[in-house]
Amino acid sequence: MNEPAPRPARSAFPWLVGASQVVGLAAVVITGVWMGHYRGGFAWDGSGREFNLHPLCMVLGLVFLQGDAILVYRVFRNEAKRNVKMLHGVIHLLALIISIVGFAAVFEFHRASKIPDMYSLHSWCGMATLVFFCIQWVMGLMFFVFPVASSWLRAMYLPIHGFCGLVLLVMSIGSSLLGITEKLVFSIMPTYSLFTPEGVLANVLGILLLIFGVLLGYLLTREEYRRPPNPEEESLSVHFKTLTEGESPTTP
Amino acid sequence: MNEPAPRPARSAFPWLVGASQVVGLAAVVITGVWMGHYRGGFAWDGSGREFNLHPLCMVLGLVFLQGDAILVYRVFRNEAKRNVKMLHGVIHLLALIISIVGFAAVFEFHRASKIPDMYSLHSWCGMATLVFFCIQWVMGLMFFVFPVASSWLRAMYLPIHGFCGLVLLVMSIGSSLLGITEKLVFSIMPTYSLFTPEGVLANVLGILLLIFGVLLGYLLTREEYRRPPNPEEESLSVHFKTLTEGESPTTP
Repeated sequence: MNEPAPRPARSAFPWLVGASQVVGLAAVVITGVWMGHYRGGFAWDGSGREFNLHPLCMVLGLVFLQGDAILVYRVFRNEAKRNVKMLHGVIHLLALIISIVGFAAVFEFHRASKIPDMYSLHSWCGMATLVFFCIQWVMGLMFFVFPVASSWLRAMYLPIHGFCGLVLLVMSIGSSLLGITEKLVFSIMPTYSLFTPEGVLANVLGILLLIFGVLLGYLLTREEYRRPPNPEEESLSVHFKTLTEGESPTTP
Repeated sequence: MNEPAPRPARSAFPWLVGASQVVGLAAVVITGVWMGHYRGGFAWDGSGREFNLHPLCMVLGLVFLQGDAILVYRVFRNEAKRNVKMLHGVIHLLALIISIVGFAAVFEFHRASKIPDMYSLHSWCGMATLVFFCIQWVMGLMFFVFPVASSWLRAMYLPIHGFCGLVLLVMSIGSSLLGITEKLVFSIMPTYSLFTPEGVLANVLGILLLIFGVLLGYLLTREEYRRPPNPEEESLSVHFKTLTEGESPTTP
């Protein structure tokens, strides 16, 4: 009756990673098409075309790049942890810069058009996400790159850092969906209920972002996709030494 | 240099569970106040007062009860698994019934007011969540209550069931936030940006739902809050036997 539990299969891994990238890139492209084709394109002039940079930067930086920055730990799980950690930090930094540009675009547009800031649920969730993202990035830098925390503290913080990263990705996707809804109701309220192409395209964008989140969530939480443990490498002090003194890492 | 990794602390567990319940109940109450005080109360007459049942049912059923149905596995992790499993299924059934009433309320309101259905991102996400919820409930019943699947299949499905449950909770919260934004922009567009009490209250509701999700996500994913493994109890065939033949469970 009691057959042994099945061995976890890893054959789906490359397909799931591939699907996540196709879906994530499609979301970025659709955002560009929505803002470029239906909303008049892009500019940095305080007009609605400056606003249009906001969705594009958020989907590219806060969702796609942030997701991929976390995914590098699964995709390159057999590479030297030092390199993967640097890649993780650098992609996150890029994501953060693009996100800040996206925030600047919408605040600049509001200022030029005399629209009040920070009154909507979208703005509250989006701002909470960006502040949390900055804190998470600085904490990651302090705990895992600079010698501020003891190895005891680092080991305690690591699972919290991972959990907060996934929460941040979910918050980013949620805030994006709120932004899509807000933009649609503000812009095409009279025709949204007629299934106009712009409304359907933006809804599809929302669903793609949701699928991207589910795929990333699955890839990041499955035990068999995790980096295999390496006791030597897991000594966080060694990480720090190889990172700061330029020694060769303990694993290839 | 390499101190041992800290032992996971469990002292925060009751506080986190308590906080989740306070936040979750506050969200239900605030939804009631929003719809009852600012939107004219409740009725089943096809008017806006019937619509008002929709947010209340979704926050109570799809978010709060669904979250608590999952949480029972952590709160009662030392009770007989058979009982906890039944409680899990029963709360989920209650959540599902209340959610279906909430869906019926909005479709009935749309029909009476001649408003088209299923055109918004909120409706797409909400419908996907409800359909997914029904599938998950039936799958859970088939795999873990009725003797449809082999123990091999059950063991393979269990982590997927758990992952899908968490995705469902996140989708439910996300759909609720989309609904809050849609309702606010439809109802108080001219005054939303003036920080009117209704807008601020609804934004606070959104933030409380977000906090509820983060607390539940943390409680459900931390390794030390999981049910301690019990090899005898883990034999799924034994579960099924105790559940269907009324034998006393193998653990107290």
